[in-house]
Amino acid sequence: MKAHTEYLEFHTKRRCEYVNITREVERAVQKSGIREGMVLVSALHTTAGVYINDDEEGLLQDLDEMLEKIAPYGAPYRHHATGEDNGDAHLKCLLIHHQVVVPVTNGRLDLGTWQRIFYAEFDGRRRKRVVIKVLGE
Amino acid sequence: MKAHTEYLEFHTKRRCEYVNITREVERAVQKSGIREGMVLVSALHTTAGVYINDDEEGLLQDLDEMLEKIAPYGAPYRHHATGEDNGDAHLKCLLIHHQVVVPVTNGRLDLGTWQRIFYAEFDGRRRKRVVIKVLGE
Amino acid sequence: MKAHTEYLEFHTKRRCEYVNITREVERAVQKSGIREGMVLVSALHTTAGVYINDDEEGLLQDLDEMLEKIAPYGAPYRHHATGEDNGDAHLKCLLIHHQVVVPVTNGRLDLGTWQRIFYAEFDGRRRKRVVIKVLGE
Repeated sequence: MKAHTEYLEFHTKRRCEYVNITREVERAVQKSGIREGMVLVSALHTTAGVYINDDEEGLLQDLDEMLEKIAPYGAPYRHHATGEDNGDAHLKCLLIHHQVVVPVTNGRLDLGTWQRIFYAEFDGRRRKRVVIKVLGE
Repeated sequence: MKAHTEYLEFHTKRRCEYVNITREVERAVQKSGIREGMVLVSALHTTAGVYINDDEEGLLQDLDEMLEKIAPYGAPYRHHATGEDNGDAHLKCLLIHHQVVVPVTNGRLDLGTWQRIFYAEFDGRRRKRVVIKVLGE
Repeated sequence: MKAHTEYLEFHTKRRCEYVNITREVERAVQKSGIREGMVLVSALHTTAGVYINDDEEGLLQDLDEMLEKIAPYGAPYRHHATGEDNGDAHLKCLLIHHQVVVPVTNGRLDLGTWQRIFYAEFDGRRRKRVVIKVLGE
């Protein structure tokens, strides 16, 4: 069994941003030399998520609007009693989730035609990180 | 370490459908010969999900209604500017998620009494696929 | 490849409760002797979840309120035709999800500064269980 670990860094310009990281994950899998296994892609924060879906501009806006409707920015969250203003970011991250596990088959990400891996930033404009862990042989 | 990969195919009659695939996943685990490990069950589409919960008809309708309320079919999604009409299916898939990882213990799915693995179709009536990847020894 | 399996037991006093189980998972990883791999933490029920986020009292209430708004307790769920009264608990569990996979690096949980693993009980006051499966070497 082999394990390979990498970290990606982000520093988005906007508070909310959806970044396609499929290529970076594919590259980590190639570097690992692993042909059969799984790759875990996981945000190391409580205000950022990782998910898989289409890379289509309209859909990214639809997603953003859905999350904003359920957990609007600037609402009077109890979490803000700590001095923070990012209650919405925590809840959005919980809805979209902070991680995915992707199968690795024949040394490649075993994804469908339209599936792309996204880093979802909900409280950006500062340094954030994602861990990539490939496991297999 | 061993790895075993299988693909399931679906072609649902209705646009939305929830299909219990526990038996198919159990069978893949048995075929793999793996006694201790994990099995990843992941939809290969951006409009279909995989989740674990009860196989109870009323609950399946409750789930359907909850998702429909958050992301109604036929709403004016920006994604539809591409010519698609399945914006709701993408959002429902994101809420329910496209994958689960189930522990394999003593050669069996380590699930609770009422836990069943479901394929959730949100834009059916065409050929779709799920990948099953068993990892362990 | 090594595999290590443990089960945690819960019996919450309240119907809904969020329990930080990070220490228990960390302990299972140490006991496994695994240095590089993944740990799967998965609820064995259809009315309890496992998720990762901040351990902050206000945020736990914000999360509880968000879930209650989407799937209120006592609403007339179709699932209740079975005699159950926990339709909300199933839906909340589906939204928050029943499992996480955490990377294990250098024998430790590879988590961000504020990330904690939570058991989310939505239908408590009875015996429930979580499985921890560590895989790696």
